[in-house]
Amino acid sequence: MNRESDHYKKRGVDYEVPPFMPTLPRKYYQSESIYQEELEKIFYRRWIMACREEEIAEPRQYLTIPVGDESVIVTRGDDGRIYGHFNVCRHRGTRICDKERGRFESDSIKCPYHAWRYDLSGALQVAPLMKEGAGFQKSDFHLFPVHIGLWGGFVFINLSEEPVLFEEELAPLIGKFEAWGLQNLRIAHELNYTLNCNWKIILQNYQECYHCPGVHPLLSKWTPFRGAVHDCIKGAVIGGHMELRDQVGGMTMDGGPAGPPLCNVTGDDLKRVHYYSVFPNLLLSPHPDFVLYHRIRSEGINRIRNDCFFLLHPDSIRDAERMDRFQSAVKFWDMTNREDWKVCEQMQLGLKSRRFKHGRYSEQEDILYALDREVLTALGHEDGY
Amino acid sequence: MNRESDHYKKRGVDYEVPPFMPTLPRKYYQSESIYQEELEKIFYRRWIMACREEEIAEPRQYLTIPVGDESVIVTRGDDGRIYGHFNVCRHRGTRICDKERGRFESDSIKCPYHAWRYDLSGALQVAPLMKEGAGFQKSDFHLFPVHIGLWGGFVFINLSEEPVLFEEELAPLIGKFEAWGLQNLRIAHELNYTLNCNWKIILQNYQECYHCPGVHPLLSKWTPFRGAVHDCIKGAVIGGHMELRDQVGGMTMDGGPAGPPLCNVTGDDLKRVHYYSVFPNLLLSPHPDFVLYHRIRSEGINRIRNDCFFLLHPDSIRDAERMDRFQSAVKFWDMTNREDWKVCEQMQLGLKSRRFKHGRYSEQEDILYALDREVLTALGHEDGY
Amino acid sequence: MNRESDHYKKRGVDYEVPPFMPTLPRKYYQSESIYQEELEKIFYRRWIMACREEEIAEPRQYLTIPVGDESVIVTRGDDGRIYGHFNVCRHRGTRICDKERGRFESDSIKCPYHAWRYDLSGALQVAPLMKEGAGFQKSDFHLFPVHIGLWGGFVFINLSEEPVLFEEELAPLIGKFEAWGLQNLRIAHELNYTLNCNWKIILQNYQECYHCPGVHPLLSKWTPFRGAVHDCIKGAVIGGHMELRDQVGGMTMDGGPAGPPLCNVTGDDLKRVHYYSVFPNLLLSPHPDFVLYHRIRSEGINRIRNDCFFLLHPDSIRDAERMDRFQSAVKFWDMTNREDWKVCEQMQLGLKSRRFKHGRYSEQEDILYALDREVLTALGHEDGY
Repeated sequence: MNRESDHYKKRGVDYEVPPFMPTLPRKYYQSESIYQEELEKIFYRRWIMACREEEIAEPRQYLTIPVGDESVIVTRGDDGRIYGHFNVCRHRGTRICDKERGRFESDSIKCPYHAWRYDLSGALQVAPLMKEGAGFQKSDFHLFPVHIGLWGGFVFINLSEEPVLFEEELAPLIGKFEAWGLQNLRIAHELNYTLNCNWKIILQNYQECYHCPGVHPLLSKWTPFRGAVHDCIKGAVIGGHMELRDQVGGMTMDGGPAGPPLCNVTGDDLKRVHYYSVFPNLLLSPHPDFVLYHRIRSEGINRIRNDCFFLLHPDSIRDAERMDRFQSAVKFWDMTNREDWKVCEQMQLGLKSRRFKHGRYSEQEDILYALDREVLTALGHEDGY
Repeated sequence: MNRESDHYKKRGVDYEVPPFMPTLPRKYYQSESIYQEELEKIFYRRWIMACREEEIAEPRQYLTIPVGDESVIVTRGDDGRIYGHFNVCRHRGTRICDKERGRFESDSIKCPYHAWRYDLSGALQVAPLMKEGAGFQKSDFHLFPVHIGLWGGFVFINLSEEPVLFEEELAPLIGKFEAWGLQNLRIAHELNYTLNCNWKIILQNYQECYHCPGVHPLLSKWTPFRGAVHDCIKGAVIGGHMELRDQVGGMTMDGGPAGPPLCNVTGDDLKRVHYYSVFPNLLLSPHPDFVLYHRIRSEGINRIRNDCFFLLHPDSIRDAERMDRFQSAVKFWDMTNREDWKVCEQMQLGLKSRRFKHGRYSEQEDILYALDREVLTALGHEDGY
Repeated sequence: MNRESDHYKKRGVDYEVPPFMPTLPRKYYQSESIYQEELEKIFYRRWIMACREEEIAEPRQYLTIPVGDESVIVTRGDDGRIYGHFNVCRHRGTRICDKERGRFESDSIKCPYHAWRYDLSGALQVAPLMKEGAGFQKSDFHLFPVHIGLWGGFVFINLSEEPVLFEEELAPLIGKFEAWGLQNLRIAHELNYTLNCNWKIILQNYQECYHCPGVHPLLSKWTPFRGAVHDCIKGAVIGGHMELRDQVGGMTMDGGPAGPPLCNVTGDDLKRVHYYSVFPNLLLSPHPDFVLYHRIRSEGINRIRNDCFFLLHPDSIRDAERMDRFQSAVKFWDMTNREDWKVCEQMQLGLKSRRFKHGRYSEQEDILYALDREVLTALGHEDGY
């Protein structure tokens, strides 16, 4: 929000910014009932990044996506369309798919218990021995649908019956990273982490670099921490960029580029690392030479699964020499991620203290106040402080 | 209940059967408070199958039987009678026996903490240094008694202070399987399983064969799934039988008999496999050539211990050749059990979905509606749907 | 309390002693909400024994002490004084120290997240980029202080903002064991245990020897269990002593002394083993030839960490031959401790039984009634029975 140079109002902030910005009260990290409320009002209501389109490139491929206590089947029909379904049979409630990913053998989804069969769009095809008539209409037993949103090769899902408009929610991103050709990029590498902290702590950690000098010596060398500029400062999409220092070519162990610039990336973007969070579970970071993103899955009030992916152009992925060089970026981010996870877990532990009510953000962290407000607004706790 | 051929009323059903039978609402599988209510109103109040008499054949032998959070000592006195006691010392509440089974060294049960001693019938014999008088009467410190019911070699226990009459509860079974000589059979084999599902899911699974074609290819080959006939359709005992297909001799890997018919089994029973559930924890399955039963122990809302036993005549057990052949029945049922456990666990997982309110039974599953009603009646939730 | 020989009133008991002393109702061992109340009203309010002074002998050495959900830093300043702080940064609530013990590199305590730095007395030294002014005063962000009490080389901490007076709480101990020179003793050996029982069960176990004949055959041989005499019978300090039998020289495997008497121990004390509990977490046992103490850490309603320490004069610790002989005392108490843990865990298990409301103490256990009253008074549950 960059309080020193700009006025909040000018940049679309329509709430009163208090002179001393408090952090979220500790109960937002400790209360099981607030966590349940978050599942209901955020994870089961907002747009959740599920996967990349390439992961279900072929018809009948599917993924099962855990969202809180729910499980969602995301699959591609023989018509090429992507469908989402609650992973629960309408007959007696059996979970249908038990694997993380797979491919249906036919154009149908079959419950393993009593063999009810649905087509890939979720319509009930066969319920053995159930006669259709006054008492039973197959059309009443469609798999519960999950809404699908597509952007830049990402598949988003929304579990609510009347979702907020996808294009409105993601508006600040649409058209923003055209130069990267996101849609055409493919997963080059994946890192998987399990963390013992609340999901919000990771989002906060991602949006401020006040911690960088102490926590990330190498990152701070490549991108000076006071160079952070936020241009999205309210709503579901929040973020900005940092500048690579002169002579520094990329976020790698040696500060050289990980490869050539992506697609049409030019000008200022050749020296910028972007950091955007798409509330509540995507952290997106276009670099000049690759795109990094984190997919966050909340598995409990103090536990998350975080999968970190690197996207490259398929030509680069096929190029062994380039991929070899690219490992330097993977190594750099794996190291930097772990530096973050450590302090995020320490924060979760500290917030167990009943003596601590809430803290206070510095000027360097003012964007977190916007992030916290997005949480409170989603929960309907506008007066949560 | 076989809606097509019979009328419910004729067969003793005294409640209104709705045209479209709903399954139990999902909260009956997910709500911790309903589970606590089930412990109080079902497991601590109804007759629980504890063990076979042969397991405490000798005086002073004992078993400790877990029932929810309670532990019960079942033992045989020097007088040959079977006694049940809460496994808790009246002095300060110490659990007395910590092993699953054993034999008391003398005719007394001694608390390991302060050495209070009770006789096998539970009367306090010795409380060291406690003088009897106006302030202390040993007779006030009898071990809390557990009621015992015996049928067919099975030992049932009831933890309530005023149990429902054992003979009334089990009425449909009394005299039913005389030809098998249940009392004289002995345990020939035992299989132990731990399952991540609610206890009711196993009872339901046991009472319908709508799932058999998809889940149990071999079982469906030996006993056609549409041949299921229920004759006990309400109350604590529910069940019926299935017919062995022509040319099929028994429930084994090759469809041949596992051995000669038991005792006096003749006529139709030579071609029938019976399946009865004794609410809430015994599944009893007399076959022509052996008796199989499951003892279910609920260890939490979504966890059960299931021990599966095979009974034979002691003469067969002593016959190595017969026992060798008998392994084919053990193998068949172990395979079939595991096929069931898999879908039962999938159902428990699916019922986590808040989007699923309740499902709908097919005609093939109408007996489950009776089973569910037994649960609701026991809980006093007659309007639970 | 020795009901037979003395009158309670004469000895300072100011409450009505009922003719039949009930044990604490089982909910005090099973109710999670009562446990939370205990944390608030006992562990976060009373004096907790944290460590020995020798463990932070040098300036900048520190320990982190878990107390319920809280973590406390205990450290020694460059001024030689001992300080206690809540282990939580005032900026955003991060836990500052994550190791059990260590030494600060400088005269400051630095938060690992955003590098806020406090001096060893807890005053905020540096908050990077935060300008002091109308909106921000460092003095408002002092580490939350924890009060320190010192006695006999022990460091006590108190987490409340207005603690009860340390000297009043420990009054019965002050001056009591001067002959042992507690302040000058050092840790010669440490035994660590984790137990599955409630913290109160260990305190009760420590204060009665009614269980000794059955549970501790060897201990009962060295100190006859009926020889227990309590002289502190109410308040935070409760305890008394037992007499070594003639010919017995000490609490070792062979009943000989573990070494020469400590410091100025003479007269009756040469034949006495003292057992005092300092509510709620120190069990202190001066022997003629060594001092044993237990530090209890409650880690949940049915889980404790118990560390058992042996103190000797540093001269003895440096003497290999003496230390060799001393192992006989370590072995004796390790064996005796384990005998106790077993029955304590059995009591926790037994108290799961809903059928057991509460038990009844014998005359031999009357001191436990005083102990239980201390719990109830601390909770404000004077009518808890």
